[in-house]
Amino acid sequence: MSLKILYEGKSKRVYVKNEDELVMEFKDDVTAMDGAIKASASGKGVLAARMSAYFFKVLEDNGIETHYIDYDGTRNITVKRLSIVPIEVIVRNYAYGSLLKRMPLYKSLQKLDPPLIEFHYKDDSLHDPLILPEDILNVGLLSRNELDYIVETTLRVNKVLDNIFSSKGLRFVDLKLEFGRDKNGRLIVADEISGDTFRVLDENGNHLDKEIFRKTKDVNIMVKAYIELCKRLGIEVKDVVSS
Amino acid sequence: MSLKILYEGKSKRVYVKNEDELVMEFKDDVTAMDGAIKASASGKGVLAARMSAYFFKVLEDNGIETHYIDYDGTRNITVKRLSIVPIEVIVRNYAYGSLLKRMPLYKSLQKLDPPLIEFHYKDDSLHDPLILPEDILNVGLLSRNELDYIVETTLRVNKVLDNIFSSKGLRFVDLKLEFGRDKNGRLIVADEISGDTFRVLDENGNHLDKEIFRKTKDVNIMVKAYIELCKRLGIEVKDVVSS
Repeated sequence: MSLKILYEGKSKRVYVKNEDELVMEFKDDVTAMDGAIKASASGKGVLAARMSAYFFKVLEDNGIETHYIDYDGTRNITVKRLSIVPIEVIVRNYAYGSLLKRMPLYKSLQKLDPPLIEFHYKDDSLHDPLILPEDILNVGLLSRNELDYIVETTLRVNKVLDNIFSSKGLRFVDLKLEFGRDKNGRLIVADEISGDTFRVLDENGNHLDKEIFRKTKDVNIMVKAYIELCKRLGIEVKDVVSS
Repeated sequence: MSLKILYEGKSKRVYVKNEDELVMEFKDDVTAMDGAIKASASGKGVLAARMSAYFFKVLEDNGIETHYIDYDGTRNITVKRLSIVPIEVIVRNYAYGSLLKRMPLYKSLQKLDPPLIEFHYKDDSLHDPLILPEDILNVGLLSRNELDYIVETTLRVNKVLDNIFSSKGLRFVDLKLEFGRDKNGRLIVADEISGDTFRVLDENGNHLDKEIFRKTKDVNIMVKAYIELCKRLGIEVKDVVSS
């Protein structure tokens, strides 16, 4: 790409399109265990991009502002240029993953009603530690109103996705969201929404998300699961070759 | 001791006195860094016992129920037999320790107003992880009313101790509490309250608590600090020999 690169992460490169717009390029790479396991597979990037564009459009249709601007079916999504808040917001409908590690008294896949919202400080060297809402306020990362807005928006996003997944016979386990501020300071849903950032189970309890890579270490099995998920969601995948 | 031992921890042994009563024996051992650093010093056990008995009595005088029954000036305190809730409750008046590790945007010793309350699941193998109040409710460790009672009681304990330390020219940084249930299910302040479980700073910013052992690895310096703290609190220490 001829644009100036702003940032390269584990699964995406971000380029500057102009003063107000960025391009997120979804790489074919996948990592797990804090980056200790890495792999790459043709199709992974475009599938994550298509899922993200699909969900961003659905959220916009439901009146939830996202950084989505435009998508052409490639591995690149054009998005609003935001200042990212260094917090991961996780919403959980069923107990799984790191939640079971910090509190082993949960039953695996125990239903969480109301959904559990938690915050992690984005810092790879600290392994994105769990923090308290009060920490966010105390250090001035968000105001009380902004924190309330993020909680409310996360629950709305969760509800929209839950309705979609339920209608496709899938169980929606959890989701990670990130937020950014635009130049007016407005908080907007950012980053991506794909099998890399949510967990969903099919009728047989199989993961149609990145968890299957954590379990099998086989990126091709993961790409097949992403293709299956896209098919269920009505996302075009005929041109995506699974190896 | 001729009593049957119930439990041995890093700093205490607990014996069964009778159906309703236990004896906590404070050892001279001190550990830090999850037990990686160990030491022992004459006087440490009796100083921690005297501090605990002192604070339990003060709390009882302030209408806060504790497991304290009787104390004879030795390293042993007689306490009510409780079923311990496997949760550490931490109340912080200033940002320090693990709080700075999980959220490095805090300034060291930043004032926390209102005090920050956090919960950790007591599990050495997991390093007592931070958990959310919702986790405690979701797994059924406490009811909503019980959780509210613990928060309210912890804030009351914090206020009582803060008044004492302030009147002695000391800065009260933070405190760890544990709670247990008696045979009627009532929640009662348990464990110990000493330099092992709170942090206090003198006028020069010196720790009169276990942090000085974490910093210096010198248990004798720590015993001297405990003696200084006891003197300030009016606790008898003439018979305690500092090596």
